[in-house]
Amino acid sequence: MPSQKEIEAMVPLSRALELVDGMRKAFYSSLECEPVPVQRSLDRRLASGVSARERSPRFNMSTVDGYAVRPADGYPLRIIRDVYAGDRNKVLLGKGETVYVATGAAVPAGADAVLKIEDVVAEGDLIVSGPSPGQEKNLVYAGSDFEAGDVILEKGAVIGPPAICVMSAAGVEDVPVFRRIRVGVLSTGDEIKNGMVRNCNAPMVCAMLQRWGCDAGNAGAVPDDAGETKAILDDAAGRFDVIVTIGGISVGKKDYVVSTIMDGGEVVFKGYRLRPGKPLLVSYYKGRPVFSLPGKPTGSFTSMELIVKRFVLGDVRQPSVAVRLEKDVGVNAGDFEHVVYVKLGHSTAVPMGYKGSPLELFPGPQYRVSLVSSSTRAIVADGYFLARESMKAGDEVIVTLL
Amino acid sequence: MPSQKEIEAMVPLSRALELVDGMRKAFYSSLECEPVPVQRSLDRRLASGVSARERSPRFNMSTVDGYAVRPADGYPLRIIRDVYAGDRNKVLLGKGETVYVATGAAVPAGADAVLKIEDVVAEGDLIVSGPSPGQEKNLVYAGSDFEAGDVILEKGAVIGPPAICVMSAAGVEDVPVFRRIRVGVLSTGDEIKNGMVRNCNAPMVCAMLQRWGCDAGNAGAVPDDAGETKAILDDAAGRFDVIVTIGGISVGKKDYVVSTIMDGGEVVFKGYRLRPGKPLLVSYYKGRPVFSLPGKPTGSFTSMELIVKRFVLGDVRQPSVAVRLEKDVGVNAGDFEHVVYVKLGHSTAVPMGYKGSPLELFPGPQYRVSLVSSSTRAIVADGYFLARESMKAGDEVIVTLL
Repeated sequence: MPSQKEIEAMVPLSRALELVDGMRKAFYSSLECEPVPVQRSLDRRLASGVSARERSPRFNMSTVDGYAVRPADGYPLRIIRDVYAGDRNKVLLGKGETVYVATGAAVPAGADAVLKIEDVVAEGDLIVSGPSPGQEKNLVYAGSDFEAGDVILEKGAVIGPPAICVMSAAGVEDVPVFRRIRVGVLSTGDEIKNGMVRNCNAPMVCAMLQRWGCDAGNAGAVPDDAGETKAILDDAAGRFDVIVTIGGISVGKKDYVVSTIMDGGEVVFKGYRLRPGKPLLVSYYKGRPVFSLPGKPTGSFTSMELIVKRFVLGDVRQPSVAVRLEKDVGVNAGDFEHVVYVKLGHSTAVPMGYKGSPLELFPGPQYRVSLVSSSTRAIVADGYFLARESMKAGDEVIVTLL
Repeated sequence: MPSQKEIEAMVPLSRALELVDGMRKAFYSSLECEPVPVQRSLDRRLASGVSARERSPRFNMSTVDGYAVRPADGYPLRIIRDVYAGDRNKVLLGKGETVYVATGAAVPAGADAVLKIEDVVAEGDLIVSGPSPGQEKNLVYAGSDFEAGDVILEKGAVIGPPAICVMSAAGVEDVPVFRRIRVGVLSTGDEIKNGMVRNCNAPMVCAMLQRWGCDAGNAGAVPDDAGETKAILDDAAGRFDVIVTIGGISVGKKDYVVSTIMDGGEVVFKGYRLRPGKPLLVSYYKGRPVFSLPGKPTGSFTSMELIVKRFVLGDVRQPSVAVRLEKDVGVNAGDFEHVVYVKLGHSTAVPMGYKGSPLELFPGPQYRVSLVSSSTRAIVADGYFLARESMKAGDEVIVTLL
């Protein structure tokens, strides 16, 4: 355990992300992988690159309905047969011969182009005139998508529908993906344990983890008690790959998460210069990465979105949009970044603050729910931007979309 | 069945979307709903509005560690006890009295503000000086998020993590959502049926439907045969809510999907002015909405993304970004819109065409897979924009992100 003075505390967001990226790299380097059938691989993360088992297309394929012709052949051409998509017969084209090929059909050996049916003049089984053969190809060559052995997907890629299409075309049946990360979500506080306050954070956190492809499970609720806090953390470390705790990380007399981790774990950083969410504690406990979120939904949601998502998904492209602020945003001076949730208008962003915060109040009775919890604000929020200083209506902001 | 001349054919995209919106409205108005527990409701669609079962917060709650005080009380104040989050004891504050309240604790009856612990001077059990009571409230009032009975979510909303948080806080246990839509995906063509061409479209289409919350199932592959096409469509109409067919909708001699639907179904529109994907046929067959996609992955993917997604999810906000084109885009003149897939750079978009298309070829050996199928282009594509005419490098385009 590092001594207190070695602990990084109240780090800037950039440093927090750097530390989380390091944790992420170490974590994935030891995460097991498993094979899954391509058709059930949606949203899984590739544990290694994927190579084509066979080439695509498998044969020279016509892209039009028309007549396959040899290079440098002239008219007239005799139509010797019709070939449709799915016809397996091997046809070899002789001099002065052509075949009708439907879209998707195999172009006969010897042919190098397909004349569109509408561009030629046919008389009986003869084509008497048409464009100069070879001017337009109208075919795709075997292997022009990829050859057998070509790498078609890189390690670490998250599998989307197009990747499933390509792997299917490449004859790939099973694909090696990282095992789903098991995350235990642990709630703290007498008020949660005894039901005086409803546990709204844990279901939200589980849902976010589920969106990111994790197996999220409830690891239980623990009252404000040092022994029970340690017992439930020990239990979670044995059952889960990663632990998320909620609440109990302030400086209050009854906050036991921090002290338990300081005693038995290894702090990565304690607090970061971001509001909301600044008390976030990131650590290892019995070798498991632990993200300890503040108890207010506002801080929980924000730290999940900025920090835990980064750990799980990495530095992925976040859809964003540049818009003008519709109202002033006042934030406290100082070396903090502020996550400002906004509702997007046509090309403007309305900031969503709450009473008592340095942000301006978002207007309208339908947003009363915004007064306390940012997670409820987030129901109507379209995204957020980061503010280091107060801003004026009309300023441009880059809104990261939720 | 409408006569041929009543069929809307080659409609503009805007008209296609209008027609699909109408189908969507009719479809959802008769779709059954079912209750699901809030914690398992992620990404489901609300079949009715949701009201709070109880208010939030349940009690006046301190937002700081400090001393609860009555309005207009003066110093000194006697500290009569400590109250923590989770303490259920009811405390009534008398004149000249205060209690220590932790963050999240219930503020005693009679008190109207909380003085921050760091702002006061305490001597033993007395607070001898501090700020003027009532200047800062530092509490949130019971019901200031919402009151019991308040509508917290609207019908039709798709449930995200923040909505799960708010419903949990509101004491909602089960929530009425639309049943998942069962979609049968049916592949056509001798080349698919006999395995000469790998079926890469159906797994991609199923994955897209799965992303949109549907239960997608393989409805089989049918060879180029009129009787078998009708039989498998009849079967699918009995087992699924919606049918997606792939291939067999060109004008070729062996395309039986169109004729089967023209005979026994009701065409909504046949073809639209969009490339790729223009042969798309949208219809009803035995009362089931049917989307008949072209056989090329490029057209399948595009019609799924623009049309079927609209049917399933409605007119949802699509994340988009305004960027400059990095290369010229040449498209055929005419009354068509062109879906141009792009790879995003820092603030530019590189168009991804393919040889033989009116679009410029996207360069680089790693994009050879882009030469044939747009679905494979879509592996590396970040989004697309719509072009009605040729465009120049430097033109601004609005890219819809995939």
